[in-house]
Amino acid sequence: MTKSEAPAPFAYDGLDRVIHEKARLGVMTSLAGKPKGLGFADLKRLCGLTDGNLSRHLQVLEEAGFVRIDKSFAGKRPVTTCFLTDKGRESFLDYLAILEQVVRDAAAASKRSLSDLSVKPA
Amino acid sequence: MTKSEAPAPFAYDGLDRVIHEKARLGVMTSLAGKPKGLGFADLKRLCGLTDGNLSRHLQVLEEAGFVRIDKSFAGKRPVTTCFLTDKGRESFLDYLAILEQVVRDAAAASKRSLSDLSVKPA
Repeated sequence: MTKSEAPAPFAYDGLDRVIHEKARLGVMTSLAGKPKGLGFADLKRLCGLTDGNLSRHLQVLEEAGFVRIDKSFAGKRPVTTCFLTDKGRESFLDYLAILEQVVRDAAAASKRSLSDLSVKPA
Repeated sequence: MTKSEAPAPFAYDGLDRVIHEKARLGVMTSLAGKPKGLGFADLKRLCGLTDGNLSRHLQVLEEAGFVRIDKSFAGKRPVTTCFLTDKGRESFLDYLAILEQVVRDAAAASKRSLSDLSVKPA
């Protein structure tokens, strides 16, 4: 069996855990479409997160250098705006390429499995 | 802004955390193509996992009812074979549908972002 000698094809080493986590994946996807950034409240609503959860996940993304957080004032009201950094955008595109591979592998496996189970030979 | 009134489009509630974890995603994808199951050693190699890690993740998948683990003997040698259950296959297909949505959203966001940054109006 030559397959077993090959490097692990289902290890998906490129799936960066910082981005792969479900809530952060939503945050990164939301920000990817907004080069001018998104306010904290909008981001919270788009991702269905609480204040505390969003803050925690933004901190992880900021520490990884994927997200930049600007704090300013609109009159007396504090405004927090979140952006993808260039590094964040690049890492997100790399991540996305692996995710597409996962979807292709999984779709192929599911199809192959159905045809293996079929009574008629393919 | 009507978008903010809509239910959270980037919450990805259907991304089952049991399947989404990177190592378990590899295990589920490996097993999805193998209706006759995969031996522990093959699964370990395909997913690039250690014995301990694979055992731990298989236990999580078994507890969720997604994987069945058969122990038997080939002569005196113990053989462990892992299968997706019907529930596991169904849940994996549901998961996969959401993952495809993520890939579409992310690709669309990345494209939109690039055209937003472009000098010429679209």
